Amino acid sequence: MSPFTGSARTTERWEHIRVTEEDGVVTVTLARPDKLNALTFQSYADLRDLLAELSRTRGARALVLGGEGAGFCSGGDVDEIIGATLDMDTTQLLDFNRMTGQVVRAIREAPFPVVAAVHGVAAGAGAVLALASDFRVADPTARFAFLFTKVGLSGGDMGAAYLLPRVVGLGHATRILMLGEPVRSAEAERIGLLSQLTEEEQAHQGAATLARRLADGPSLAHAQTKALLTAELDLPLSAAVEMDAATQALLMNSADYAEFHAAFVERRPPKWQHGEAGGAAK
Amino acid sequence: MSPFTGSARTTERWEHIRVTEEDGVVTVTLARPDKLNALTFQSYADLRDLLAELSRTRGARALVLGGEGAGFCSGGDVDEIIGATLDMDTTQLLDFNRMTGQVVRAIREAPFPVVAAVHGVAAGAGAVLALASDFRVADPTARFAFLFTKVGLSGGDMGAAYLLPRVVGLGHATRILMLGEPVRSAEAERIGLLSQLTEEEQAHQGAATLARRLADGPSLAHAQTKALLTAELDLPLSAAVEMDAATQALLMNSADYAEFHAAFVERRPPKWQHGEAGGAAK
Amino acid sequence: MSPFTGSARTTERWEHIRVTEEDGVVTVTLARPDKLNALTFQSYADLRDLLAELSRTRGARALVLGGEGAGFCSGGDVDEIIGATLDMDTTQLLDFNRMTGQVVRAIREAPFPVVAAVHGVAAGAGAVLALASDFRVADPTARFAFLFTKVGLSGGDMGAAYLLPRVVGLGHATRILMLGEPVRSAEAERIGLLSQLTEEEQAHQGAATLARRLADGPSLAHAQTKALLTAELDLPLSAAVEMDAATQALLMNSADYAEFHAAFVERRPPKWQHGEAGGAAK
Repeated sequence: MSPFTGSARTTERWEHIRVTEEDGVVTVTLARPDKLNALTFQSYADLRDLLAELSRTRGARALVLGGEGAGFCSGGDVDEIIGATLDMDTTQLLDFNRMTGQVVRAIREAPFPVVAAVHGVAAGAGAVLALASDFRVADPTARFAFLFTKVGLSGGDMGAAYLLPRVVGLGHATRILMLGEPVRSAEAERIGLLSQLTEEEQAHQGAATLARRLADGPSLAHAQTKALLTAELDLPLSAAVEMDAATQALLMNSADYAEFHAAFVERRPPKWQHGEAGGAAK
Repeated sequence: MSPFTGSARTTERWEHIRVTEEDGVVTVTLARPDKLNALTFQSYADLRDLLAELSRTRGARALVLGGEGAGFCSGGDVDEIIGATLDMDTTQLLDFNRMTGQVVRAIREAPFPVVAAVHGVAAGAGAVLALASDFRVADPTARFAFLFTKVGLSGGDMGAAYLLPRVVGLGHATRILMLGEPVRSAEAERIGLLSQLTEEEQAHQGAATLARRLADGPSLAHAQTKALLTAELDLPLSAAVEMDAATQALLMNSADYAEFHAAFVERRPPKWQHGEAGGAAK
Repeated sequence: MSPFTGSARTTERWEHIRVTEEDGVVTVTLARPDKLNALTFQSYADLRDLLAELSRTRGARALVLGGEGAGFCSGGDVDEIIGATLDMDTTQLLDFNRMTGQVVRAIREAPFPVVAAVHGVAAGAGAVLALASDFRVADPTARFAFLFTKVGLSGGDMGAAYLLPRVVGLGHATRILMLGEPVRSAEAERIGLLSQLTEEEQAHQGAATLARRLADGPSLAHAQTKALLTAELDLPLSAAVEMDAATQALLMNSADYAEFHAAFVERRPPKWQHGEAGGAAK
């Protein structure tokens, strides 16, 4: 969709995750229900590459990330990942851990909102994928388990020690990452880890409805809101205010802003420009 | 009040906001009740200039910001601001958006606490003015609407994408800025957006009482507490601890600290030195 | 315990705080119950030096900080500290305030979790010691009073203006540090200041149980989780993700990670290596 295309081709088939698209909403499903959607080296790589492609092609205006079967994602597979890492050398270990972190950065830096639909267990890397998403829509069965210390690893994995304190505060984050105990939906809602708590078995529907609404626009406004939220966690106030000013000046030249005003004057709902938001990046 | 005066005069009359002062408490009222106190280019400029003057002259030991009529502030005027920006060139758009950001920086950097008295709607720029204040005293009718995306703009406006995650956490902030939906007083209190929830129609009285108490001192201690809170959001722990140490050493030489000890020994309430706090800046 | 020892000796007797150790859990008791455990110049120095020694010798895998008698700690002694500082010159004031900040940095940077057991009053510097700890286990009598402005000083003392907004958000932190009013246990729990609320008179037991559990390991994982939480408050996302990747690659070479996998395969609980976690620093 982007006007700028070079030599790189897009991937024809994602073999390790299920990917569908409907009018700007891309749905990614972790689909190994017999393994509680445990992640493998290949599914991490697919998530990283898919997010990069969608960011380059503007192939999504919103993305839903969910899991098939009894839960969201049980994290790295104990056999296929933990077992395999025990035989890796230092370079391989760093390569693997950098890849998982790149998935988190790709989620945070994607130019579209990411909505995690969480039911059942979101454990280890699964919990961090949900944490890195912009929205967490969960049903009452959801439980987040940042259980890294329980396997002898650091609770700071894939940016969790950066993200969790900024979502729930340092006190809760220390307790959760250090002890590795599950955070159930009621506590998750109370401490600000959930964006929306649905009725039972409604997490996927709730996430899909939210993603549909986001994809309906104004998408450029959504994308820039996300970009500023991500950037300004790392900026001082003075730079943040300047970045907001430049961004807002840019968007005041956008078709969507003019359309809002026209619709307001004509007392009708605005028709957001998916073309611009979804495709016309320079 | 400050011992240092150069050529600059102070403004004799604020034409676009209502400003009163009583013994160190400055009250600023947005007073276009027929327009729900919508902001104009001139009222933004007056807020920016008033805060700069008060910071220079030490003309306030506390400031209350409120709105007349049915609500706090409906944000930038749709006709006078949104309409006008559609005809602006790039330089003008940047100038305007920098000015609004300067108001927020002026609130955060003013050497006195700012108390927002919020009843009814605080929308768009109005919501950010309240957010940038040190205290938000609200009654049950208050609702904060960071509705920027609903007009096709970025939710990161005037530092909102910097401030809101630091007040309510990244999860709530993302939801609120991305979707633009109103946050009513009960939710605002639950997520930490309110400093105080009053009885109905008591937001102004509550804010005035708090400002009075703050202006009664110790004002230098209040000013430095605010300055450190603002600065240390942007500092690493090591620098923050050093800044606290230097500040505390400075204040241990202040008249108010000696007065506390004398009053403690004499078993009487301390008499804070408004002279020092309100005027004797070097 | 550390393999690296130079000329420095360890302290034979801590005269101004009570220190005991049992299988990796060091318990530090502020023990001036007739003065509500008010801190003195000497007890600050002992806390600073003890934490430095334990960090160097790896003499603790967890530490409990509590107070004897009616409360946790009433802060700096009004006679012995406030009175004395009134006679200090600028260099002495800076030296004193830097020392108190060094205690906070030592808590945050210690390579083991610190658990504050809070009952009754935690005031002034006492409140900040609890705030700087990784866990705050409190009973219903606990009240935190950041009362610095009430004595004419800045609410930003010993890193409080850095830490409190990162634990409870900027809105609550501003109110608490500016006004200096006590935060009782129910509010403390609601806003995220508590890690655990116990039954009455159970704060010490609760903290001891938690510290025991932490000291039982995996200690290297706990130490690195804490180090990352502390560091990543001051890092951008990109650096945090890289730091997590390097740390996790390191820990994937640790005995505890291999032990987890072996135990998982053999369907038995893991036996964590206190030797490595508690002693085998480089």
